[in-house]
Amino acid sequence: MFPGARADRTAARYVVVGAPLDVSTTFQPGTRFGPDRVRRFSRTFDDYDHHTDSRFTDLSVHDAGDVHAWDDAGDYLQFLRGTLTDVLADGATPLLVGGEHTVTRAGVEAVTERDDSPDDLTFVCLDAHLDLREEYDGNPLSHATVTRHVLDHADRAVILGARTGSEAEWERASEPDVTVVPPSEVADWTPDFDGQAYLSVDIDGADPAFAPGTGTMEPFGLTSREMHRVVRAVAPRALGFDVVEVNDRDDGQAATLAGKLLRAFVFAHAAAGDGTA
Amino acid sequence: MFPGARADRTAARYVVVGAPLDVSTTFQPGTRFGPDRVRRFSRTFDDYDHHTDSRFTDLSVHDAGDVHAWDDAGDYLQFLRGTLTDVLADGATPLLVGGEHTVTRAGVEAVTERDDSPDDLTFVCLDAHLDLREEYDGNPLSHATVTRHVLDHADRAVILGARTGSEAEWERASEPDVTVVPPSEVADWTPDFDGQAYLSVDIDGADPAFAPGTGTMEPFGLTSREMHRVVRAVAPRALGFDVVEVNDRDDGQAATLAGKLLRAFVFAHAAAGDGTA
Amino acid sequence: MFPGARADRTAARYVVVGAPLDVSTTFQPGTRFGPDRVRRFSRTFDDYDHHTDSRFTDLSVHDAGDVHAWDDAGDYLQFLRGTLTDVLADGATPLLVGGEHTVTRAGVEAVTERDDSPDDLTFVCLDAHLDLREEYDGNPLSHATVTRHVLDHADRAVILGARTGSEAEWERASEPDVTVVPPSEVADWTPDFDGQAYLSVDIDGADPAFAPGTGTMEPFGLTSREMHRVVRAVAPRALGFDVVEVNDRDDGQAATLAGKLLRAFVFAHAAAGDGTA
Amino acid sequence: MFPGARADRTAARYVVVGAPLDVSTTFQPGTRFGPDRVRRFSRTFDDYDHHTDSRFTDLSVHDAGDVHAWDDAGDYLQFLRGTLTDVLADGATPLLVGGEHTVTRAGVEAVTERDDSPDDLTFVCLDAHLDLREEYDGNPLSHATVTRHVLDHADRAVILGARTGSEAEWERASEPDVTVVPPSEVADWTPDFDGQAYLSVDIDGADPAFAPGTGTMEPFGLTSREMHRVVRAVAPRALGFDVVEVNDRDDGQAATLAGKLLRAFVFAHAAAGDGTA
Amino acid sequence: MFPGARADRTAARYVVVGAPLDVSTTFQPGTRFGPDRVRRFSRTFDDYDHHTDSRFTDLSVHDAGDVHAWDDAGDYLQFLRGTLTDVLADGATPLLVGGEHTVTRAGVEAVTERDDSPDDLTFVCLDAHLDLREEYDGNPLSHATVTRHVLDHADRAVILGARTGSEAEWERASEPDVTVVPPSEVADWTPDFDGQAYLSVDIDGADPAFAPGTGTMEPFGLTSREMHRVVRAVAPRALGFDVVEVNDRDDGQAATLAGKLLRAFVFAHAAAGDGTA
Amino acid sequence: MFPGARADRTAARYVVVGAPLDVSTTFQPGTRFGPDRVRRFSRTFDDYDHHTDSRFTDLSVHDAGDVHAWDDAGDYLQFLRGTLTDVLADGATPLLVGGEHTVTRAGVEAVTERDDSPDDLTFVCLDAHLDLREEYDGNPLSHATVTRHVLDHADRAVILGARTGSEAEWERASEPDVTVVPPSEVADWTPDFDGQAYLSVDIDGADPAFAPGTGTMEPFGLTSREMHRVVRAVAPRALGFDVVEVNDRDDGQAATLAGKLLRAFVFAHAAAGDGTA
Ligand SMILES: [Mn+2]
Ligand SMILES: [Mn+2]
Ligand SMILES: [Mn+2]
Ligand SMILES: [Mn+2]
Ligand SMILES: [Mn+2]
Ligand SMILES: [Mn+2]
Ligand SMILES: [Mn+2]
Ligand SMILES: [Mn+2]
Ligand SMILES: [Mn+2]
Ligand SMILES: [Mn+2]
Ligand SMILES: [Mn+2]
Ligand SMILES: [Mn+2]
Repeated sequence: MFPGARADRTAARYVVVGAPLDVSTTFQPGTRFGPDRVRRFSRTFDDYDHHTDSRFTDLSVHDAGDVHAWDDAGDYLQFLRGTLTDVLADGATPLLVGGEHTVTRAGVEAVTERDDSPDDLTFVCLDAHLDLREEYDGNPLSHATVTRHVLDHADRAVILGARTGSEAEWERASEPDVTVVPPSEVADWTPDFDGQAYLSVDIDGADPAFAPGTGTMEPFGLTSREMHRVVRAVAPRALGFDVVEVNDRDDGQAATLAGKLLRAFVFAHAAAGDGTA
Repeated sequence: MFPGARADRTAARYVVVGAPLDVSTTFQPGTRFGPDRVRRFSRTFDDYDHHTDSRFTDLSVHDAGDVHAWDDAGDYLQFLRGTLTDVLADGATPLLVGGEHTVTRAGVEAVTERDDSPDDLTFVCLDAHLDLREEYDGNPLSHATVTRHVLDHADRAVILGARTGSEAEWERASEPDVTVVPPSEVADWTPDFDGQAYLSVDIDGADPAFAPGTGTMEPFGLTSREMHRVVRAVAPRALGFDVVEVNDRDDGQAATLAGKLLRAFVFAHAAAGDGTA
Repeated sequence: MFPGARADRTAARYVVVGAPLDVSTTFQPGTRFGPDRVRRFSRTFDDYDHHTDSRFTDLSVHDAGDVHAWDDAGDYLQFLRGTLTDVLADGATPLLVGGEHTVTRAGVEAVTERDDSPDDLTFVCLDAHLDLREEYDGNPLSHATVTRHVLDHADRAVILGARTGSEAEWERASEPDVTVVPPSEVADWTPDFDGQAYLSVDIDGADPAFAPGTGTMEPFGLTSREMHRVVRAVAPRALGFDVVEVNDRDDGQAATLAGKLLRAFVFAHAAAGDGTA
Repeated sequence: MFPGARADRTAARYVVVGAPLDVSTTFQPGTRFGPDRVRRFSRTFDDYDHHTDSRFTDLSVHDAGDVHAWDDAGDYLQFLRGTLTDVLADGATPLLVGGEHTVTRAGVEAVTERDDSPDDLTFVCLDAHLDLREEYDGNPLSHATVTRHVLDHADRAVILGARTGSEAEWERASEPDVTVVPPSEVADWTPDFDGQAYLSVDIDGADPAFAPGTGTMEPFGLTSREMHRVVRAVAPRALGFDVVEVNDRDDGQAATLAGKLLRAFVFAHAAAGDGTA
Repeated sequence: MFPGARADRTAARYVVVGAPLDVSTTFQPGTRFGPDRVRRFSRTFDDYDHHTDSRFTDLSVHDAGDVHAWDDAGDYLQFLRGTLTDVLADGATPLLVGGEHTVTRAGVEAVTERDDSPDDLTFVCLDAHLDLREEYDGNPLSHATVTRHVLDHADRAVILGARTGSEAEWERASEPDVTVVPPSEVADWTPDFDGQAYLSVDIDGADPAFAPGTGTMEPFGLTSREMHRVVRAVAPRALGFDVVEVNDRDDGQAATLAGKLLRAFVFAHAAAGDGTA
Repeated sequence: MFPGARADRTAARYVVVGAPLDVSTTFQPGTRFGPDRVRRFSRTFDDYDHHTDSRFTDLSVHDAGDVHAWDDAGDYLQFLRGTLTDVLADGATPLLVGGEHTVTRAGVEAVTERDDSPDDLTFVCLDAHLDLREEYDGNPLSHATVTRHVLDHADRAVILGARTGSEAEWERASEPDVTVVPPSEVADWTPDFDGQAYLSVDIDGADPAFAPGTGTMEPFGLTSREMHRVVRAVAPRALGFDVVEVNDRDDGQAATLAGKLLRAFVFAHAAAGDGTA
């Protein structure tokens, strides 16, 4: 159980869903251990949050455990989307914990394919990578394609901290529905879009110093404080949240940061009201 | 390059082929790093072998590098089989280094589907697991099915050190074409079959003390000396060899053992003549 | 949840109880992570056991989670004993997962202080250490005193694999109610006592090669196969079981061995009937 | 021996005292290895310091070794305080190396309970946590209570880099004798109090990127440069120093940082004269 | 092979040369694994670079493998220099990957001892250390002496991020041919010299948070972004490049940063034209 | 200090001398950390030994610390020999802790070059390697040459557990003054020579399962119990002892085994009287 996530499923305003998918990781595998590890390294956190003067255990968070992953990513995403759709149908906000970035697709689809889906949804993403490929090594469901898939459903994408991609990805990124904020400008970024958001945190948006335990480390990245600021700024408008790409190949830094950002999201989202403020 | 494998491809009697497939690992991933790691931890070995009074560098071993893996195991196995068929066509013996056990299928198929394929082929396997499943988590190409697939091509299987499997696997293992030698009897086992062999070493046949760096550790296993004896006994009749399931999650024990067993195979095979003795 | 331990609490014949006490570890701490780690590394095991022709999921095992530990060992043991007494009162056999060896005291007390407590109880222990101290560093509740405390309740102790202790401990061990079986004789040992048993596995009974992840490694110890044989031999007469002293300071060997021995206990115990055979 | 701490005990102006207490660590234990590890990772530092144009070996530092810890924290603190009182009585400045933060209490008490104790003592602390609890898990001597205990002796506390605590702790922190400087303001902080100081460095004040080897990582923390500046600014007014909460669960980053900050303290303190400037 | 370095030797404009010398490391050895590790952790990088709108595989980089090291550093440097001289003679720019910093001497000598050696060469170095010793532990070829040796050939040295050295080294550093830029000023530094440069990156110039895998961690160092900026600024004037002192004692952070800086060098150098712009 | 080695230098019957030489390690470096690590992992051992009914602290062992190593192995060995000669001159038995195997040469020379040097000295060595080379990579002082050098001083060598070497080494090993006992025969070996002995334990004599933390792992080796038996059998006739080649690249198994074997030597040697029995 994510520490403090002790609300009942039915009463919950937030539902943690683990999605340990780990099939398309290009380099260092281990995201299958991400959800467990994030829960484990979150044990040390205080219940109380000073920024929002609230307690995590008062915010009605439920941990639904993991959606067991298998190696057919397409089938898995469909099943996962069903789980998340149920969460949303119950009026709760999903907090997806990967697993590889691919799982974000299920999160965004769950948000956008509801009857009361938002008119205008911005996909905000902290990521070292553009993830705008059409396929990777022949695989159209690779983590490196997730933002492209998401753009089939969201109105635009804002990718914060992105610093690498293929030439085709950068071309795609130059179209009007994509905004790339390089690492050096993230500290000063504030949300400049209308409507609602889905917030996805690929932990490799951080510099490897802050999150070495991830599949593809990419230097020259964000500090933990920069990521914290973004999460708190976007949370009030977010309908869904995920944190992905944490593996078990470090001394806990990546999982600790991921768990803390998940909590920061909940605190800021709850403080802002119903998420549509 | 596998240390000492400095023969040219055309002249080689043995060809090392890395097959870093890592898609169906059930628990701890990392077999994608197996070939690299086996090569790295084999650097310290002496060229000379006292048992056979020969030098590794005199035995005409070539390292063909890795066959880059992607996540469609079926396609990959087919491609890999092609590579190994070429090795055999050139009169050389393939030394396959996994990657997950699934790759063995390509090795056995390459051996059995040649024009001069053996009349009678025994698949000898060191493994903690029976690997006789029909599918695993819906996947008919999982590493846990490899021996079943192999039995479509080989006349029988001898599984040394096996200590676990599903009920259906044990039933399959009770059929006449399968012999299971439990760990406690491996020390006294000698080859009791006619004809030729394919030898596959799943490093998890070893007790975790001897090879912790593998996807599914299974206690109560073989010692390194017991495995060594088997490799040397079977090598003279073997048409192909592989060592699989080494990952990077230990301090080098698994890779060191794998590299040493590969060399033991080459020394014993070469000492026996052309492998058909 | 311990993998496969999916029975309901009320129907269960076996109940896993985690006891992550970690206060008196002399050298390398981390037993607080023992229960989690044993559960995690047990994920890979097959449900089916060939020795007993049975499935773990058919044996009615429940995982009651952990009894949260705090730093007053005395209070904790009392609370833990209550939990285990409830398990026994419900007709189930407790499977305690430490945590430091100290927790065994709660297990033995729960077994011996019931109305239908056994007339004659032998405490069988796999351990590198005698654990017969009166106190350690001034602490009478140290893990190094557990067997002495147990002897207030059990009729005798058989310590298998013991190879070290203080002079006073060895003196105590020479009294008639203690039998020490040195590592070299464990392979040939068979239970030679009447009545019932409590079986405690201190993972440091193993040689460090087989279980490096423990607080005080002690070379010249048991192999995993030797420990397996003992667990299967004693299980049929056991009223309770524990496995302790696993920490997180290795690559999973200790936890894997611990999980496997716990399962071996359940399989052998269930196969023998009600535990009194 | 702390590298370069080769002065005799009697002549020393600074005395390193290791205090490997490790009983109340909430999450990841190992502070018992802190003193050893800080000494070990300090071996690489140059003797000479360019900022102050002085050599560590000229500053008369003695390493008194460790005060062996046991599990009665109350007794231990009393004994430790005695050791530190002796250091102060000899006119030397204690450099305490933890062990858990709890040991700071002994340091502050030694400083304040002398005959010539300062009229006005500010406790300056680099810490992620407020450590203002009354008890933690029932333990009034937990590391999480240390600053509260210290405020029984010091006139005020300045907690630099604090970012988490319970609601009650934040209330306590709002009283006039406590100043909290959040991480984002530490870079600009300068000492703004009169009188003398005791400086305590809880290594978890650093962001986990800079010090992953600590019991409770807390993201969004200080950089190493920010901590360095604070240590040099406060040292001239400090009567005592400690660095605590380093464990062995990283690749040496935490211990290296701790050792360097200890040296920075000595260099800056010695350069300023007698510590009362 | 360094990923993407697939040009032929004869056609190459850049040649990667591994130099795994590891004899004088003062503290934590392992630089012998540096070249392998840098290659391995560079596998994940995209071929395309957005800053320069170019592909690494288009820039004609060859990987010449490693120059096998032995323990006579003097002989080794001479042999290595020969290899690098050949690279330069062929019109290519050497990209040396250490190994200990000592190997830089071979790089600078190769650049300066050609017929068309530059009239005015500035040695630009990112390093925590001055490396201006005359000898270290009696060894005049220690890594700690490399910049002094280099100054026999280069006209001046600019040492960026230096924060420690012996008193004699700081004295040497005060002479007119040496400029030391402390870590806090590196962010604003721009090349202020005429003529050409040799760029050497000692990975310990980074704060240990960013590169823990190095022989002598030195806190209060550079961020990865600061180092990136320097490499891109100096590359256009550089005749040679190296990155050194990476070992295998972290989770890949140091090697990943090193590989990324090597690529940043190539992209910026190629974008600027022939390196003499 | 080696735990329990609290005798004064002058009164000591045994003197521990650390020799952290680490210059010729072929593969994985780190023996420089051997002495520290052996001391650290020996902290957990009981003072009392049941085999000999004696206490380590009663056996008058002194720890003289380390002889600081530098990179001129020849000079270092000469200096080290002086230290060991002094130990012997004082009537004490040296217990040398490496560092690489090279240091054994100093130990044997110290023993044989005294006035009362033994008439007949057998060098007994537990080692995976013959160490009979004339040079290694051009270095006549490599660890791989140590037994050859020793044979200039000792009358014969018995190498227990040896399983690899060059062809020239095996030829040298076939001469009458060398006896090689392969791993499979070590369990039954008993000392079969007259006169006195020097006992050298290269920890890589053990199978990597028992001692992964060493420079060149060599599978198919000895168990810890087999090594224990040899040490106890040879100790009574030994004039000197060493244990070498432990590094820090495992979870403590190698250092723990080394520390235990050193203690076993002392217990058995002391129990036998003056070492000349
Ligand atoms: Mn991504
Ligand atoms: Mn990414
Ligand atoms: Mn298999
Ligand atoms: Mn297997
Ligand atoms: Mn015990
Ligand atoms: Mn024990
Ligand atoms: Mn604190
Ligand atoms: Mn803290
Ligand atoms: Mn340098
Ligand atoms: Mn440096
Ligand atoms: Mn040797
Ligand atoms: Mn050896």
